[in-house]
Amino acid sequence: MNTPTINPTGGALAGVRVIEAAAFVAAPLGGMTLAQMGADVIRIDTLGGGLDFRRWPVTADNTSLFWCGLNKSKRSVALDLGKPEGREIAMALITAPGEDAGILLTNFPPRGWLDHEKLKERREDLIQLTVQGDRHGGSAVDYTINSRVGIPYITGDESGAATNEAVNHVLPAWDLVTGQMAAVGLLAAERHRLKTGHGQHVKLALEDVALAVVSHLGLIAEAQLGQQRQRHGNELFGAFGRDFKTSDGELVIIVGLTLKQWQAICGAMGLTEAVKGLGERTGLNLDLEGDRFKARKELGVMVEEWMTQHTYAEASAALAKQGACWGRYQTLRQLVTQDEACSLANPMFRTIDQPGVGKHLAAGLPLNFSAWERLPVAAAPTLGQHTDEVLSELLGVTQAQYGAIVERGVVGR
Amino acid sequence: MNTPTINPTGGALAGVRVIEAAAFVAAPLGGMTLAQMGADVIRIDTLGGGLDFRRWPVTADNTSLFWCGLNKSKRSVALDLGKPEGREIAMALITAPGEDAGILLTNFPPRGWLDHEKLKERREDLIQLTVQGDRHGGSAVDYTINSRVGIPYITGDESGAATNEAVNHVLPAWDLVTGQMAAVGLLAAERHRLKTGHGQHVKLALEDVALAVVSHLGLIAEAQLGQQRQRHGNELFGAFGRDFKTSDGELVIIVGLTLKQWQAICGAMGLTEAVKGLGERTGLNLDLEGDRFKARKELGVMVEEWMTQHTYAEASAALAKQGACWGRYQTLRQLVTQDEACSLANPMFRTIDQPGVGKHLAAGLPLNFSAWERLPVAAAPTLGQHTDEVLSELLGVTQAQYGAIVERGVVGR
Repeated sequence: MNTPTINPTGGALAGVRVIEAAAFVAAPLGGMTLAQMGADVIRIDTLGGGLDFRRWPVTADNTSLFWCGLNKSKRSVALDLGKPEGREIAMALITAPGEDAGILLTNFPPRGWLDHEKLKERREDLIQLTVQGDRHGGSAVDYTINSRVGIPYITGDESGAATNEAVNHVLPAWDLVTGQMAAVGLLAAERHRLKTGHGQHVKLALEDVALAVVSHLGLIAEAQLGQQRQRHGNELFGAFGRDFKTSDGELVIIVGLTLKQWQAICGAMGLTEAVKGLGERTGLNLDLEGDRFKARKELGVMVEEWMTQHTYAEASAALAKQGACWGRYQTLRQLVTQDEACSLANPMFRTIDQPGVGKHLAAGLPLNFSAWERLPVAAAPTLGQHTDEVLSELLGVTQAQYGAIVERGVVGR
Repeated sequence: MNTPTINPTGGALAGVRVIEAAAFVAAPLGGMTLAQMGADVIRIDTLGGGLDFRRWPVTADNTSLFWCGLNKSKRSVALDLGKPEGREIAMALITAPGEDAGILLTNFPPRGWLDHEKLKERREDLIQLTVQGDRHGGSAVDYTINSRVGIPYITGDESGAATNEAVNHVLPAWDLVTGQMAAVGLLAAERHRLKTGHGQHVKLALEDVALAVVSHLGLIAEAQLGQQRQRHGNELFGAFGRDFKTSDGELVIIVGLTLKQWQAICGAMGLTEAVKGLGERTGLNLDLEGDRFKARKELGVMVEEWMTQHTYAEASAALAKQGACWGRYQTLRQLVTQDEACSLANPMFRTIDQPGVGKHLAAGLPLNFSAWERLPVAAAPTLGQHTDEVLSELLGVTQAQYGAIVERGVVGR
């Protein structure tokens, strides 16, 4: 028998049990958010691992840093889901008794062993959340959704407009938002069950998340009302902000979104008079963010001139002194080796020893609750690490029965 | 007296009341997520509007599509927060009695009228969630955080690596994730209060959200273990996927992340034999996503050749027939005018009539709960639209008293 990887005491969701049958980013991230709040999140995987078990980045020996990163603090049950008995055990786990249990998070189609109606026959108050590609259940991933909602055509250098170039994002933003919304949906449904005893099936389509966000940001209204958003390279739309290089070659972003932020930039660089002059010449009120956007090229030249005459040390000192809003562009390597926030000095981080990977820095929950200490970050399980203990705990499977299940090839040895 | 914009009955969070004092994306989006689940979310703004009241995109008469988009389905109270009486009313609203009330969502510093300890003196079980820039409360916005966590250096064309070019994202992804996590945090804290009666102060730093995500995606481990992520243009890292142009000039993204998706592409394009030959020549197992990434240039040539020989109509029919994972690159204008999912055919959308904007398509909640009908999408309030009714409902302010408050200039006329 394995010893449990995680200690189920403590945290906002202590006592809550969630079964997760999921791959890639959105649903596993939603599940991990719950796990990092103290829920007992038990993944069910097929023997040998699911669709994302070898997703890159991987180590030299093909352990997925992606899979490990998204499944921290969970338990793992591995079953042969091709066998009726494997599917039967999976359904029994999903619907096992327990006051704050009976919660299923998945991004697989709700049929077969994930059929909500069949599962409900075994546990009437089941809460199931199904993440879908499109709202009809069709196939879609973050990158195909992103192409549809217009973002690649407004990303990147202005020169790309002439060639109709599209720039994909590398951060799967839609997956990330969907994962957190999945956690929102489960918590809202669980709140309802606490009050009424009723479960339900919640559906959440990646496509709808992206469409809603572009609506909420005003992009749908803007396009519908006849304006065509242009691409503006690294310039922040509607205010002042872009990248600048210091005299010693460091790249920084400087943002003047609010008036206070803008005044801090002018103060740090001694630009107040020059900006006043520009406002008078152009008839723009540069205290307004929109007018700063209109004058962004001229303002950019002023800031650029100052930046090229100052080293990074000088520029950062001056900007920090005025409380400006700015940041250095860092490579991931610089982030990991030079940024104090990405180190054990930040209480969100711990060093974990991940089987197949080794010791490395890993993040816990960004939410910092005053009512609970942050839970320690636990490594991802090895595949099937907790099969025996979970079958014993949830289904009362004895060691003899477990041995027979192993013999029948339903679980790994 | 105004009539209420929203009907507080129905939805997952019917009966819950949240006070929001917030600007920009993250906190308002978190608040709107709660509002679109039926919570009564009441914004407190300063007279004339807060920092984001004119955030672009704006209409010709300077109404912010951004502000309206992020504040749909909320109520608005506008007070002169420069006056002690304005701040006093704000604190009274935040701590007003009510079983499922006493919840504050803000991204302003927790001092003055937002000081958690002072507010707690008035309502012991207050739940406050404060969104911060960095974990010490320092200034940061999505774009300055993004520069720090390494994403701009791995975005965009491979040629950018030589010039150390950084490519900013235009979608404020960190804000979006943070907004949903804020909703998660409030729901978890409210669950705890339902069970124990205790409130708390939850803090959530934009910086921590970004750092956690790059950890979860394996990027921190990868960098720490000595690998340097390269930029790969529009190519999907670790599998097969990129943009292709059809013979009639349409740009589409085609993704073969899973084996099934890859086989669908090969089936649609008749590439099965050619791919087999490539595998034999190179010694790669192209059934594996990682090997497809290694052979992405050669595979890209094959797919490209097929695509340049087929029109968009032909390519999309062939891909759809095989159940491939693909999407068309659309401008926002194409999305709004040509995509069925971005229309009233999608039950998430409604047409709203927004004061200062007019009728346009607006999105409700992506979460589709089986226990509740989707709530109608309500327009954003006009600034201070509900000041009188909220002061009456929550604080019992009479019409005569309200008149005196107006006289003292604490609220608008």
